[in-house]
Amino acid sequence: MSRKLHLNAFLMSTGHHEASWRLPESDPLAHLSVDHYVHLARTAERGHFDSIFFADSPVLQGEPGRRPAGKLEPTILLTAIAARTSKIGLIATASTSYNDPYNLARRFASVDWVSGGRVGWNIVTTAGADAARNFGLDDTPDHAERYEKAAEFVDVATKLWDSWDDDAFIGDKRLGIHSDPDKVHPTDHVGRFFRIAGPLNVPRSPQAYPVLVQAGSSEDGKNFAARYAEAVFTAQQTLDDGTAFYSDLKDRTRRLGRDPENIKILPGIVPVIGDTEAHARELDEELTRLILPEFQRRNLAERFNLPAEELDLDSPLPADLPTEDEIQGAKSRFTLIVNLARREQLTVRQLIARLGGGRGHRTFAGTAEQVADTIEEWFNAGAADGFNVMPAVLPSGLERFVDEVVPILTQRGLFRGEYETSTLREHYGLPRPGSRYSADAAATIAL
Amino acid sequence: MSRKLHLNAFLMSTGHHEASWRLPESDPLAHLSVDHYVHLARTAERGHFDSIFFADSPVLQGEPGRRPAGKLEPTILLTAIAARTSKIGLIATASTSYNDPYNLARRFASVDWVSGGRVGWNIVTTAGADAARNFGLDDTPDHAERYEKAAEFVDVATKLWDSWDDDAFIGDKRLGIHSDPDKVHPTDHVGRFFRIAGPLNVPRSPQAYPVLVQAGSSEDGKNFAARYAEAVFTAQQTLDDGTAFYSDLKDRTRRLGRDPENIKILPGIVPVIGDTEAHARELDEELTRLILPEFQRRNLAERFNLPAEELDLDSPLPADLPTEDEIQGAKSRFTLIVNLARREQLTVRQLIARLGGGRGHRTFAGTAEQVADTIEEWFNAGAADGFNVMPAVLPSGLERFVDEVVPILTQRGLFRGEYETSTLREHYGLPRPGSRYSADAAATIAL
Repeated sequence: MSRKLHLNAFLMSTGHHEASWRLPESDPLAHLSVDHYVHLARTAERGHFDSIFFADSPVLQGEPGRRPAGKLEPTILLTAIAARTSKIGLIATASTSYNDPYNLARRFASVDWVSGGRVGWNIVTTAGADAARNFGLDDTPDHAERYEKAAEFVDVATKLWDSWDDDAFIGDKRLGIHSDPDKVHPTDHVGRFFRIAGPLNVPRSPQAYPVLVQAGSSEDGKNFAARYAEAVFTAQQTLDDGTAFYSDLKDRTRRLGRDPENIKILPGIVPVIGDTEAHARELDEELTRLILPEFQRRNLAERFNLPAEELDLDSPLPADLPTEDEIQGAKSRFTLIVNLARREQLTVRQLIARLGGGRGHRTFAGTAEQVADTIEEWFNAGAADGFNVMPAVLPSGLERFVDEVVPILTQRGLFRGEYETSTLREHYGLPRPGSRYSADAAATIAL
Repeated sequence: MSRKLHLNAFLMSTGHHEASWRLPESDPLAHLSVDHYVHLARTAERGHFDSIFFADSPVLQGEPGRRPAGKLEPTILLTAIAARTSKIGLIATASTSYNDPYNLARRFASVDWVSGGRVGWNIVTTAGADAARNFGLDDTPDHAERYEKAAEFVDVATKLWDSWDDDAFIGDKRLGIHSDPDKVHPTDHVGRFFRIAGPLNVPRSPQAYPVLVQAGSSEDGKNFAARYAEAVFTAQQTLDDGTAFYSDLKDRTRRLGRDPENIKILPGIVPVIGDTEAHARELDEELTRLILPEFQRRNLAERFNLPAEELDLDSPLPADLPTEDEIQGAKSRFTLIVNLARREQLTVRQLIARLGGGRGHRTFAGTAEQVADTIEEWFNAGAADGFNVMPAVLPSGLERFVDEVVPILTQRGLFRGEYETSTLREHYGLPRPGSRYSADAAATIAL
């Protein structure tokens, strides 16, 4: 069987372009509308996407005045969507810094049960003092400590998901024996960050564990991904950067004794699809015109830890910027943005326009054919196992992708023409983890 | 308009009777089946119930061997149900001891958005060392401290739900002004248990706050209910106890300056409905025969903080039991059970049979007419604003209630014959809370 690519739809209110809510077609309250998101999910499902995905952070991000702010909690929103779809995978972001493992493990197991095995967990450590201040802290723990906690969190979560053996159920009504208590295991975890007796109060779910997803591309992030992740979202601006990241992460995974086939690498792409190349560029420029440069200058300055006055809209970035070490969150994204500005000699205003589409993810404006071409090129060059599709405008950008790009990919034999599998793990070709308590655990355990 | 009664369906796997899973009709894996629960919710909605409700605790309760153990997390399960129902209210239990207010407030606001204003929160403090041990603690905090934390939790949750004014949204696409930042308020809470900067990252939801529900009937519990609760679930075995509890709680509510109409008192009833009274008793006896007395003896001993050997199945309860003060959770339930056993001079075996149906809630076996009679009697005597209906067997017990008892109640003018309202607050006749930041807050704020 030839290698097939995977597609995830990253859903965000009216689209990934900063200014998308200002288009005539956009509903500025889309971020609160379950019907909006159900329509998007069904559109992606019509295109046989592997999954949809929601980013998240437990804090009101950015100023509420200048763009849609706030969002519904992803495990809730995805559960509502699960009930109105049947095949597509559902990936929710949740923080290891601001959740209890018992509650979160249970919630993901519950979504897996109600969705028939379609849930994934995008594991984030959550940077930023503003999030910390919603949880009794003055500032965010440092990057390395957040990742250490994340590792312990995932370790104990997988142990909780193994609490019940798959064959614990007996169901003998006559004798009154419901389950075999010897097949329900205490957790007894004592670590640096967590102490959890267990067992989990949800039996082992259809997928056993949610598909584990990760999106950090810093050193800590890549090491974490190599150890735990089964799918990785990443921002890569050039094919060279993409292939370098891909082979680096596959190598790290192999060195940890894991099969590199079991980690799917999905760079982001922000497609702006037009009837012609010129039409696509027009759409892109219309969006750029709607950007609020002063507002985005403040956002960029915040990312760089600088006063906004130090960024002049019509000059290049200042020579004297912080180093990646001095940035506490989104480290690799910081470096990507600085490199992009320097490589292409962009002014701050031009950089803001480039970031408007996907916050550092690669924007590609062109025809459906050209979008399919770049996807095929990256896929065949060893830069991607698939793509994290981030339409600039929603729903129209996803509809065009599904109606125009997907058929080309299918025709070229790169992508499925119908669902042949049921669970999210199966869509991505990932194994169902064995339990650490099963007799053949050594042979089957995935993590 | 004459006073109308309210009905909540308390849903639990194959029913509230301990042994219900052993009946031929029961699916022993019902507790993991979203389709089972959707069927129950739609049945209750067909009967125009105000709401459905799930109990919860973040721990595996009881031995897994002898009955269905574990359950899906209620905010997830209710969200899945919300997508497949349209009117019925959805009440989820969540613990104030083992959640973060920011995360939980956000989750309830999200369920309120996706359900169109149908969510309620049953506020529990969660007794028991076994739950504590899933959250890094050796033992549960004591009863008074748990209630103090619960009060601070609810205070800050309501403040988080007030973060966004109802009219914060502007949506001026031309000027690029999405919302009025002056109508988004920081939380700035610093208390004994929590420090939360806010604001919440979910705009004010259809109901503003979930309907706040409470079920503790201890002194601490009643005082908490009088201050915060808008609906109260309670276990009452006799009409006298029911009227005493009702007038006591309404008085406490009035003394705190709240309108006693805004707290709905809903005693539990475990109906066992037969074609004749004799048939109903047969059904009840069939269930009693399926109880595992040794298993239930251990459960009862645990509730009493005694070694199981001290309970003899064929003798009355020992004279020397702990006092309510010595019990850390379910205090009022403890007293109710002891009083029941002593008042009716029950042996331990007989007591176990009585508790089999509803764990201390009143079991009533009779015809549909007789069930309607006792409901009307309690309602008119001032013991109830409605009932927490806890069918011994599910789904059949709920189906019979909806098909046979509800029409009688409707015919008597006691209960609605169709939905006339949309949100859970409206079903129960409860006001939508005003915001503490609105100009007329003093006049409209509910809490």
